[in-house]
Amino acid sequence: MAKIETLQWIGAADGRLQMIDQTRLPTELIEIQCRDVPTVWEAIKMLRVRGAPAIGIAAAYGVCLGLQAVAGRDEAGFFHHLHEVAAYLATSRPTAVNLFWALDRMKAKAETLRGKPTTEIAARLLDEARAIHEQDRAMCRAIGEHGAKLLADGQGVLTHCNAGGLATAEYGTALAVFFIAAEQGKRLSIYADETRPLLQGARLTAWELQKAGLDVTLICDSTAAQVMREGRIQAVITGADRIAANGDSANKIGTYGVAVLAAAHNIPFYIAAPTSTFDLSIATGAEIPIEQRDPREITHGFGRQTAPDGVKVYNPAFDVTPAKLIAAIICERGVIRPVTREAIAGMVG
Amino acid sequence: MAKIETLQWIGAADGRLQMIDQTRLPTELIEIQCRDVPTVWEAIKMLRVRGAPAIGIAAAYGVCLGLQAVAGRDEAGFFHHLHEVAAYLATSRPTAVNLFWALDRMKAKAETLRGKPTTEIAARLLDEARAIHEQDRAMCRAIGEHGAKLLADGQGVLTHCNAGGLATAEYGTALAVFFIAAEQGKRLSIYADETRPLLQGARLTAWELQKAGLDVTLICDSTAAQVMREGRIQAVITGADRIAANGDSANKIGTYGVAVLAAAHNIPFYIAAPTSTFDLSIATGAEIPIEQRDPREITHGFGRQTAPDGVKVYNPAFDVTPAKLIAAIICERGVIRPVTREAIAGMVG
Repeated sequence: MAKIETLQWIGAADGRLQMIDQTRLPTELIEIQCRDVPTVWEAIKMLRVRGAPAIGIAAAYGVCLGLQAVAGRDEAGFFHHLHEVAAYLATSRPTAVNLFWALDRMKAKAETLRGKPTTEIAARLLDEARAIHEQDRAMCRAIGEHGAKLLADGQGVLTHCNAGGLATAEYGTALAVFFIAAEQGKRLSIYADETRPLLQGARLTAWELQKAGLDVTLICDSTAAQVMREGRIQAVITGADRIAANGDSANKIGTYGVAVLAAAHNIPFYIAAPTSTFDLSIATGAEIPIEQRDPREITHGFGRQTAPDGVKVYNPAFDVTPAKLIAAIICERGVIRPVTREAIAGMVG
Repeated sequence: MAKIETLQWIGAADGRLQMIDQTRLPTELIEIQCRDVPTVWEAIKMLRVRGAPAIGIAAAYGVCLGLQAVAGRDEAGFFHHLHEVAAYLATSRPTAVNLFWALDRMKAKAETLRGKPTTEIAARLLDEARAIHEQDRAMCRAIGEHGAKLLADGQGVLTHCNAGGLATAEYGTALAVFFIAAEQGKRLSIYADETRPLLQGARLTAWELQKAGLDVTLICDSTAAQVMREGRIQAVITGADRIAANGDSANKIGTYGVAVLAAAHNIPFYIAAPTSTFDLSIATGAEIPIEQRDPREITHGFGRQTAPDGVKVYNPAFDVTPAKLIAAIICERGVIRPVTREAIAGMVG
């Protein structure tokens, strides 16, 4: 399978972050060179890099870029700047828990290095960012291995949005399951929802699966029900952006609808996500804030205006799928099934 | 409410047909003045006028335009020309049943007028075209009046695709229910699915409702489930393209999914359609053939490529909603509820 390098740190501590500009796919494969923090902030904000793990990795490398200017300065100035950079990056996508997790990890690592020369702290923080990156790669592979056991040769599967290699270091979460199943010789018929408004399914998932040589069919979001009804789907797997202590899972708008449709057709609905996606501080999905996005994503989404001037638009970025609709959550440590507060605490806590 | 005049005959027998160019919506409201038959032919061919009833009305007026040149001539020449014009208009959309129905009705009316002066026949045929137009208006209004009884002040409603005035003489079918409810002083919050791949909801339904001063909010198809879950929707109403004897209803792809979601949220799902939509010769929806459409509608919608080259696509034009998911079918004769073979035979047969 062709390898996708979503994010790549080029060089040493004075190097740069190279990332695939996912807004240019699927017609152009353009790699952006990020040499400063605002470029990383803008890339996260504008979804040039997206997907919880990839955002976390990008933010960690973003911190390293921010420290290039202050490596060598006094410790107080260095740490002050570190916290400023982290606070700034945290404003790029306020719903993305991995963003905060990665920034917190970088700050915590820095604290353990107090007393060392700031050039060394900067170098060690780059190692930490690289470790976050490498651990994500290994974690995705583990998710894929656990999830692949749930699928059989010849099955049809459906996914929504993009929880693929582009969203992570390499394999993705939901797509890792497909990639590993394929490595094991299981032939899957994969249906990809195009995922309006930003068409991550059409632009990214279809591109990634096609590039990897898997059998993928693109459908409109509204066709998922019909495809299920025709008996083409034996499992639905999506990623998640944030999972509450009881298993309620926030993910791209439309995921909840797909889960309801799967239940109505007796098809198991799975979430594939690393344990870092769990936020055990929130009891249920009701506490997850839902980001509202620009109406123009819907009214002007294809480079052409497709709705009347001034029309009201409701454009939530996410919805929350209640735990009762989720047959299992696949994480890097194993499969949580059934999805209960106790099972989650046992695996994640 | 601002009235939408999809089609309008201006003047007497020597007048002209004015129509909204629907290919220019929603960004421009351009009215075409049809003064000859080729202009009407081109408008039907190029989907400037669309929707089965509206095409039939346009063709009937097109016949009247064709007769302007021969009114006053001898009967043989007049009838020869009438048949030529009708045959020519019939080639504009060879699959549109309402087109043939309207042309046949005009020819049959002409036959009953043989022996009268051809200027009088031409005038009476304009009356016939106006009658086709007026009968469609009255039928849609009756659908609206029956349906409006199902809605209460302050409710939220959802519709999919465009079953509005643009497809008919004035009120539409599903949208007629909203228009009449509004006339009765009921304030509705209407949610319009954008309806991929061709975005009839965004381009036409949102435009029509906004123009009429109704409260409309545009959403992505995949947001319907979330809007239901938030308690914003008390009824779903869509049109139908073909209804089997048992009530199974074919309509725009995505309708079936919306019906499943409505059932899961205990929201009544209604179909609004004239009795001419029933095809009692087919027992169930399983016999309704599903047209497959061009993959480029999904991969190259609206002038930009949004999916990778060569990706497989599944693009059915319609799906079939089983009768058991339909709380009622609203037609011009009343409300069929519950939707059973017997109730349908009683109302339509």
